[in-house]
Amino acid sequence: MRASEIRALFAVANRPEVVSLAGGMPYLEGLPLDQIADTMQRLVATRGATALQYGSGQGDETLREKILDVVRLEGIECHPDDVVVTTGSQQALDLVTRIFVDPGDVVVAEAPSYVGALGVFRSYQADVVHVPLDEHGLVPEALEETLGHLAAEGRRVKLLYTVPNFHNPAGVTLTAERRPRILEIAQRYGVLVIEDNPYGLLGFDGQTLPALRSLDDEGVLYLGSFSKTFAPGYRVGWVVAPHAVREKLVLASESAILCPSNASQLAIAAYLETCDWKGQIKQFRELYRERRDAMIGALAEHLPSARWTVPDGGFYTWVQLPDGLDARSMLPRAVTARVAYVPGTAFYADGTGSSHVRLSYCFPTPERIREGVRRLAGVVNAEQELVEIFGTNAELDPDVTDVENPSPNLA
Amino acid sequence: MRASEIRALFAVANRPEVVSLAGGMPYLEGLPLDQIADTMQRLVATRGATALQYGSGQGDETLREKILDVVRLEGIECHPDDVVVTTGSQQALDLVTRIFVDPGDVVVAEAPSYVGALGVFRSYQADVVHVPLDEHGLVPEALEETLGHLAAEGRRVKLLYTVPNFHNPAGVTLTAERRPRILEIAQRYGVLVIEDNPYGLLGFDGQTLPALRSLDDEGVLYLGSFSKTFAPGYRVGWVVAPHAVREKLVLASESAILCPSNASQLAIAAYLETCDWKGQIKQFRELYRERRDAMIGALAEHLPSARWTVPDGGFYTWVQLPDGLDARSMLPRAVTARVAYVPGTAFYADGTGSSHVRLSYCFPTPERIREGVRRLAGVVNAEQELVEIFGTNAELDPDVTDVENPSPNLA
Repeated sequence: MRASEIRALFAVANRPEVVSLAGGMPYLEGLPLDQIADTMQRLVATRGATALQYGSGQGDETLREKILDVVRLEGIECHPDDVVVTTGSQQALDLVTRIFVDPGDVVVAEAPSYVGALGVFRSYQADVVHVPLDEHGLVPEALEETLGHLAAEGRRVKLLYTVPNFHNPAGVTLTAERRPRILEIAQRYGVLVIEDNPYGLLGFDGQTLPALRSLDDEGVLYLGSFSKTFAPGYRVGWVVAPHAVREKLVLASESAILCPSNASQLAIAAYLETCDWKGQIKQFRELYRERRDAMIGALAEHLPSARWTVPDGGFYTWVQLPDGLDARSMLPRAVTARVAYVPGTAFYADGTGSSHVRLSYCFPTPERIREGVRRLAGVVNAEQELVEIFGTNAELDPDVTDVENPSPNLA
Repeated sequence: MRASEIRALFAVANRPEVVSLAGGMPYLEGLPLDQIADTMQRLVATRGATALQYGSGQGDETLREKILDVVRLEGIECHPDDVVVTTGSQQALDLVTRIFVDPGDVVVAEAPSYVGALGVFRSYQADVVHVPLDEHGLVPEALEETLGHLAAEGRRVKLLYTVPNFHNPAGVTLTAERRPRILEIAQRYGVLVIEDNPYGLLGFDGQTLPALRSLDDEGVLYLGSFSKTFAPGYRVGWVVAPHAVREKLVLASESAILCPSNASQLAIAAYLETCDWKGQIKQFRELYRERRDAMIGALAEHLPSARWTVPDGGFYTWVQLPDGLDARSMLPRAVTARVAYVPGTAFYADGTGSSHVRLSYCFPTPERIREGVRRLAGVVNAEQELVEIFGTNAELDPDVTDVENPSPNLA
């Protein structure tokens, strides 16, 4: 299944009769849209000539100051000058890779890892080497071993890419105990850490772990985003970067887009100023916890033959299918049964992952989630009968990497 | 003068006491901000859950349909599927270069050429070869000769980059007679044409020339923008591209930013729907014509020893300084005299252009433009005295290329 086929399939999966457990879209109906609408009106009426004009390449200073309030919740103390605003954190990933990675360089990433990051690394011809994670996040011993091997082979390792909190797609969180160990290992091998943290404030028990960046000012680039805690439609993310990298980021961003949208940046600054954004995040935590519960409950009821992670925040659970099932070849039949997911292969650079699926519970209501899992269970059971007869349900060339590029559906 | 010095200088140049004839910022006070504010309010109140959500990588379909109405004014007939929305046309330049240009490939561009495009070409290690333009735009005979030489040398020429209308920085327009000749030559040498056209609707006599793309569906990528005819703060541009290129553009854009901002796109679609956008463009034409007149009149009065182009649209005039003057070394003294411009060297990939300056008349009022030219004339006269004594006013290593990256100030 090639990228174009995946696209065609997701076009079908976006039909209303399909329960999509595939996407990473936040549930925006919960936002105070009338209040936001009035805020936008006032912004353009009173500051329109600024909001509609070109801005600075680094991003609006007022917004950068407000971003300090957000990252302080995760223990990060920095200066507005340390922040570079980007067009979503996807652009940050693109710029960082553009700056640091030459073709053939190694990027170390968790196994599995965010599909959109893998697409960026691939587009710059990086060689992605995966390091296992477990229920406590990235495994320090495995990281040490991998970096040791790579050093012995003389490979040039440029970046360690990690999603420490409520991992996409694995749904696990790096423990506080492991965080300094990961940083120490990366530092010892001279590898810059990319901490991608869109979900960090969405812990279901109100917990917020200290960011890696709060433990290391120089060795970590922190990527933040308003896409999951407020709204992705403005496309506003940011990087907290050491001085030398920040200058390069600004130059690269100016070459790529001149400057981030003033309209979007001032809109978000006005939202942070006039709305109860912390209360809103609390509401989102409760909403997504309820949906996580619906997802996990439905898996236990309908798919006891599978295994899954139980995320304590974020949008995703990572499900291992019963033995012998191939998530890619099953997908067309799942869509026919009106349920969609992302096959695990999307989250590996090496074509593995076919025994897993990522299920997201962020967008559908609890009722729809339960119905989706019920449908998925029907498909899995039918596939298992195939496996019992033929030994496998796979039909595809295992060398074909199926998602060559991220799609907004997979964010 | 390195990029960082230019930046420091422009930071000073942005102070209110300095008349900046350097920037390419449109004059937004003329927009109906109250009406736009109400439009934004309604958009978020009624369609907020869509406007604030992720969108498609190619761009919102409603906006793409409305873009057809815009490009039809320049004779382009195409389908919404042919349009890819980008984060300003700067992103389009970046994506097109990323797709087509390998290090060492040649990009042919006018002499002079848009600084932001040169920055992108440089960032992908393209080798920019300039072709002269005259008062009728890019010179076909010179293009033919250059492409012939390059072919004889076995060079791989990937793109011809051109701003046919109201050129940035030269202020000239490619005549209707030359357009098919340029296209024929490019086609014969198998070179894809990038038609960058942010100013095409801003002709001071209401004239609108047929776009190159209207004469050639397959060999031209057309880059459009709302930044000069409406507002740059939304960062919305677009490409009209042949089918095969369009698919690549969408994939590259998804890798770079996932998707363009829905908030920005729906805002612009709502503006086009509810406001008199054609009437607004007519107002802008009149406003900028008045400022062009102020600029040209002041040059004739205060700087008769210089030569300049008389643009019949757009934002810029291209001024050749009196013999012996160096625009780069003069700039710090100009800023001290509270006037700023962009030295001609910014618009060449090869370090030439020091005898020219770009003056823009888009943002300051006519009074400020006249005052700015008066101040500039004072600086030029003082420099000429230096030249008479020392033979030159240049102080710099001529190998230093002074603007390594575009800045929003230079858009």
